[in-house]
Amino acid sequence: MRVLLLGFGNVGRTVASLLTVERPRFPGLNSLDVQVTGLVTRTKGALANPRGINLTRAVTEIRSTGSFDRANPEFLRVTATEALANLEYDVLVELTPLSIEGKGEPATTYVKTALSRGRSVVTANKGPAAFAFRELRDCAAKNRARFLYESTVMDGAPVFSLAESSLKGCVVKGFSGILNSTTTYILTRMEDGADLEGALEQARREGFVEADAAHDLDGWDAAAKVSVLANALMNASLTPPDIVRQGISGLTPAKVKKTRAEGKILRLVGRGWREGSRVRGRVELATLPLNHPFAGVQGSGSILRIETDLMCPILITQERPTLYDTAYGVLNDLLLLSSHPTEGRPG
Amino acid sequence: MRVLLLGFGNVGRTVASLLTVERPRFPGLNSLDVQVTGLVTRTKGALANPRGINLTRAVTEIRSTGSFDRANPEFLRVTATEALANLEYDVLVELTPLSIEGKGEPATTYVKTALSRGRSVVTANKGPAAFAFRELRDCAAKNRARFLYESTVMDGAPVFSLAESSLKGCVVKGFSGILNSTTTYILTRMEDGADLEGALEQARREGFVEADAAHDLDGWDAAAKVSVLANALMNASLTPPDIVRQGISGLTPAKVKKTRAEGKILRLVGRGWREGSRVRGRVELATLPLNHPFAGVQGSGSILRIETDLMCPILITQERPTLYDTAYGVLNDLLLLSSHPTEGRPG
Repeated sequence: MRVLLLGFGNVGRTVASLLTVERPRFPGLNSLDVQVTGLVTRTKGALANPRGINLTRAVTEIRSTGSFDRANPEFLRVTATEALANLEYDVLVELTPLSIEGKGEPATTYVKTALSRGRSVVTANKGPAAFAFRELRDCAAKNRARFLYESTVMDGAPVFSLAESSLKGCVVKGFSGILNSTTTYILTRMEDGADLEGALEQARREGFVEADAAHDLDGWDAAAKVSVLANALMNASLTPPDIVRQGISGLTPAKVKKTRAEGKILRLVGRGWREGSRVRGRVELATLPLNHPFAGVQGSGSILRIETDLMCPILITQERPTLYDTAYGVLNDLLLLSSHPTEGRPG
Repeated sequence: MRVLLLGFGNVGRTVASLLTVERPRFPGLNSLDVQVTGLVTRTKGALANPRGINLTRAVTEIRSTGSFDRANPEFLRVTATEALANLEYDVLVELTPLSIEGKGEPATTYVKTALSRGRSVVTANKGPAAFAFRELRDCAAKNRARFLYESTVMDGAPVFSLAESSLKGCVVKGFSGILNSTTTYILTRMEDGADLEGALEQARREGFVEADAAHDLDGWDAAAKVSVLANALMNASLTPPDIVRQGISGLTPAKVKKTRAEGKILRLVGRGWREGSRVRGRVELATLPLNHPFAGVQGSGSILRIETDLMCPILITQERPTLYDTAYGVLNDLLLLSSHPTEGRPG
């Protein structure tokens, strides 16, 4: 599979590392036949090689100077849009950052361009599936391509691949979960006595906070995930602004202390449910008893509870993910693509 | 898909009900195109109809008289072995009871016979995958058929379909879980003050105990599940007698009380792990702190924690399964078969 990679931040570099220097440690990746033929970033330059870029060199260059070396024979002056239209690739791996303000753009357009050309897409960016799920799913089907997004919620922990293979025949009635780890981290620190600013500062030091902390604190990240889950698991057509949204900004140590004194804890919980023929979503600062299954989630962990018509509720818990988990979600999608390049029944 | 159904106990009758009278309640089953062309029991008679048995009548007959009516035009004098060799079917659905004493027979032979004829098999009986996993997997591959067994562990909750689609590229390093609900129920009652006999009697009244309670109490049911998990997730070749096994027989109220006084609980935990190139399995009465993720499992619930090389640990929790969950596991396997009739890459 020839891959065009857009974005080369932490996730992209971990994917590159797993495909090269770290690969011998993971025998399960043996069957993954991937050549990255294009690697395009917004500010660090671009590389292209129809026979496969030297990813080890690419990682080294970024680590040493922060951008690709113009002396690199694979260096190319090309934008993402030009690369999508002109480079040779079978799969787009889209790893650019989420833009809530940009309503998922420009990632959504990148994804649509690739799908329209009959190229499958793997993305770890919540934007496309949160803002334009149905359009992209239909575009994929029309062009006999696949649109995969396992890493957008709970990193590589099974959510969407699970829904596809393990919830066949079920109708998902609703879901709930702790989907944003920054707020869990901050709430845990506040339970230990910190105020919001102090806890946020600690979270930053430990690498729990993305570039824009407001996305986490105001519930936008969780809302984007609720939107993706509702769209993918419940056939909804929601976008993040449709999700009723509460964050943890303005939360005081006194409120945390009072809740704790009542034997309960506060957690940012995302939910999706059906109301008649509509699907609704919400992100709220929920008060949970200490024996609630969500109360055990710690650190970077996440949990998702799925209710269906045919099964009793099931829960997926992810204990303590790192960048490897997000990168693994991308690799799992690539492995799914290599075994089932198109949806539906095989020829 | 033409199905030969062996066994018509609680699970078989729930499957039949979901395929007929209850079907309109579950729109996700619309795409499932199944005709049961043969239905063979050990003591209740057999039915056959190449155009599809009247399952509603079959369920009614069993409910009213305990066996099929000889006046039923579909009634046939046939054994399972004869049916497997002579009836027309695409898939064997094997729902006979587990026999530890019989080392998984006669179910394993039934499964092998169908696979050897190139027919795929769906089973809810732990025997074949616990006692002869590798042989059956290889037999399926050789005959371009599939061997599916989702319901054998945690009913229809995603375990094996998850491993197939969501753990691609991972190597499973180990697993642990609470896999037998009868013992959880009894241990919970003993925590409330009951003795073992009283708790077992209560479990019987509430329908938690299979025909042979010793299988649950002595850890054989859990050992069979550990064997299936080790074989399917870790490419092992274990059988239930290979699993180091502890049960709850002989447990005294005093021991339960003492553990509880120490702020801990006792649960029957199954584990699989690697030792060098070997896979080992164990079932043990473990002492768990109250904040352990397994401690929240109640009633008929189960939990499974899977450790891999590429991901942080993930946990699958099943809250309170009923017969529908087991029946659903069978239907999910049938749906998997209808979308991917053979293993591996589609043509």
